[in-house]
Amino acid sequence: MDRAKPLPSLLVQRYHGWKATAFAENRAWYKRLADEGQRPKTMVISCCDSRVHVTGIFGADQGEFFIHRNIANLIPPYLPDGQQHGTSAALEYAVTALKVAHVVIMGHSGCGGVQGCLDMCSGRAPELEEKSSFVGRWMDLLRPGYDRIKDLDGYDAQRNALEREAVLVSLENLMTFPFVEERVASGDLSVHGLWHDIGNGTVEQYLPSSKVFEPI
Amino acid sequence: MDRAKPLPSLLVQRYHGWKATAFAENRAWYKRLADEGQRPKTMVISCCDSRVHVTGIFGADQGEFFIHRNIANLIPPYLPDGQQHGTSAALEYAVTALKVAHVVIMGHSGCGGVQGCLDMCSGRAPELEEKSSFVGRWMDLLRPGYDRIKDLDGYDAQRNALEREAVLVSLENLMTFPFVEERVASGDLSVHGLWHDIGNGTVEQYLPSSKVFEPI
Amino acid sequence: MDRAKPLPSLLVQRYHGWKATAFAENRAWYKRLADEGQRPKTMVISCCDSRVHVTGIFGADQGEFFIHRNIANLIPPYLPDGQQHGTSAALEYAVTALKVAHVVIMGHSGCGGVQGCLDMCSGRAPELEEKSSFVGRWMDLLRPGYDRIKDLDGYDAQRNALEREAVLVSLENLMTFPFVEERVASGDLSVHGLWHDIGNGTVEQYLPSSKVFEPI
Amino acid sequence: MDRAKPLPSLLVQRYHGWKATAFAENRAWYKRLADEGQRPKTMVISCCDSRVHVTGIFGADQGEFFIHRNIANLIPPYLPDGQQHGTSAALEYAVTALKVAHVVIMGHSGCGGVQGCLDMCSGRAPELEEKSSFVGRWMDLLRPGYDRIKDLDGYDAQRNALEREAVLVSLENLMTFPFVEERVASGDLSVHGLWHDIGNGTVEQYLPSSKVFEPI
Repeated sequence: MDRAKPLPSLLVQRYHGWKATAFAENRAWYKRLADEGQRPKTMVISCCDSRVHVTGIFGADQGEFFIHRNIANLIPPYLPDGQQHGTSAALEYAVTALKVAHVVIMGHSGCGGVQGCLDMCSGRAPELEEKSSFVGRWMDLLRPGYDRIKDLDGYDAQRNALEREAVLVSLENLMTFPFVEERVASGDLSVHGLWHDIGNGTVEQYLPSSKVFEPI
Repeated sequence: MDRAKPLPSLLVQRYHGWKATAFAENRAWYKRLADEGQRPKTMVISCCDSRVHVTGIFGADQGEFFIHRNIANLIPPYLPDGQQHGTSAALEYAVTALKVAHVVIMGHSGCGGVQGCLDMCSGRAPELEEKSSFVGRWMDLLRPGYDRIKDLDGYDAQRNALEREAVLVSLENLMTFPFVEERVASGDLSVHGLWHDIGNGTVEQYLPSSKVFEPI
Repeated sequence: MDRAKPLPSLLVQRYHGWKATAFAENRAWYKRLADEGQRPKTMVISCCDSRVHVTGIFGADQGEFFIHRNIANLIPPYLPDGQQHGTSAALEYAVTALKVAHVVIMGHSGCGGVQGCLDMCSGRAPELEEKSSFVGRWMDLLRPGYDRIKDLDGYDAQRNALEREAVLVSLENLMTFPFVEERVASGDLSVHGLWHDIGNGTVEQYLPSSKVFEPI
Repeated sequence: MDRAKPLPSLLVQRYHGWKATAFAENRAWYKRLADEGQRPKTMVISCCDSRVHVTGIFGADQGEFFIHRNIANLIPPYLPDGQQHGTSAALEYAVTALKVAHVVIMGHSGCGGVQGCLDMCSGRAPELEEKSSFVGRWMDLLRPGYDRIKDLDGYDAQRNALEREAVLVSLENLMTFPFVEERVASGDLSVHGLWHDIGNGTVEQYLPSSKVFEPI
């Protein structure tokens, strides 16, 4: 921590802009959020990608979305082995402590993590197969998705399909968590799978009835 | 995935608002971001808390911030054991693939994860000590911070200090990653530790020279 | 070039201040900008006036705004006659080589160039009508705007209107460039007209729907 | 102008940040600048490049620098032919109307315009030789500089030298303006040639005594 540097002055300046405007206009609301704690209705799991911010896309107010962001918006399977599982911890906190009513998983086009997985699984990225590759090991979670799309024709078709598989695999893993399954069964929680195209701005959702993603 | 439900109509409605305004205004920019890929300057690690969105606080444009959000904005120590480490994967991708110039860790007031850690470490929350508690195991990462603040007088003082320790412990762990240490040493990467007060809107930064957090 | 003098020490001193602070804070980012080249989202055409710096007004980071500044923020009509057109060259480079997504033209209050044009067109400044007056010939570009405001009552009203005409005439001329028209038609580029009041800090934007400038 | 679009909301937001902070803190100064007009001490001619903003590098206050920015920071020779010369107009206004005491020309590393000139002159960019290329015709101004560096060994050496020639040729052309020459001779105006390295942050100045650029 003795290596920490002061924040770049541009960010300091912009922060003071926010403080004097967006914060000042909502001072009472921020105070209430601070005094009473958060009460979000929705948890969103999306990618770290700098081009995809769900607060903007869904016009979320402060206090509405509890957001976990990781590489490729993945949820691992339920594995209570006493090790550190950051995504599972976020999910557990949202569902059991905050009692959110919705869990939304949103994938997106041009995902670097998904592309890395595709390259790794198809033998194009041996460096991601090394034990020491954090990205490679994380993307192992998507291997079941790769097995379902590997026979598609062409790299682009495979990548497009695998981006949607990142949502579907996560939805599957999501249901392996007992506290999720139970609340979905009782109707206290609903889960949603989305995929966002950065270039044309569309959002698609997975509909089990048709087993495809369709524009919202 | 056969349990997935259509997105609530309120979110669909808001999405179409975004599509018709913010997206339409920047259609060409989104197209370019899609075609050319992201090139973020900064990685931010912040909490999932629904009250703290760094894109707003720092007026970030699409493409500027690569954002990982987990419970209590924690970074684990470097541990290349072949297991899944979502935070380490995000960090590796940002620093080695995207070559960000800044890593910013931002903690905040009223952090539920930090409070859980305090309660667990002080014997007030036995349920968090169970092996099956994902939140408890995740918050184990902050135990070294608890040891440094446990002698402070009073629960509130301890909690306030522990929120800042969540930033300091993460800064320490951050420097255990060889690819981070190397780039910090060569001047290609700088790291920053912040703490945000939700109620009064202030942001403090850690300054190694004075060993305290000071308002920006 | 044998008449060049050393830079005044005050500027040397300030430069070293920048180098030790703003540059040092972002050293890694500058290195990356140097290695990878610029990728600005926006081109801004504004006046040379020392009181109007768009980087400050819009909190722009290094690499965000490609900025052309000339007298009275004018864009000439498309004229590929093989002569030197500095503004057209800047526009061509921004749109075709850098592929910016936005072109913003910003006029301002108290513009000396606009006042010169008004004086020249109304017979008050014969010296500007001479062939050898660079300022006069440059401000000829705004004559179509003068024709639209010359019947307004009073010098101040005419000057205020002519400042906005400098933006409107430039927007009109901007659309005569084939590479601009084409990208605006395809949605790859959007254009914006602003006017800034130095004294009270307001910024107005031209809205075609209402055919007036309105505060942002 | 009926194609103009509203300003992207992010820029609107950032503007309000500036208004509430930097502007509010200096309200009296802005009012005075508006009431009394500008009185800049220095004119700067620099490139449009989004990575090089002289207000930052030299910590310039509002009202200090009258800034003309064009591709490759070029000044054409004095040519009072009644045509439109935007750079000459800016120079004339700064020197004869505003009576600045300094004219500073600042080039920089990685200049796209200079590289285009090098490619064009060495036969690598036939498209820039077309009559309709605004960038090509603009960069013709630098051909005398190319002739002086064309025998250097290697592309990088030529490009580095040509970036500095863009400053030297401009200094030469600057002195062909009678109103400049006269004021330099009387000691009322001094001129300066700089070159800035984006990656390492250095600024060099041309010293006629040694005929080289040296770090300031």
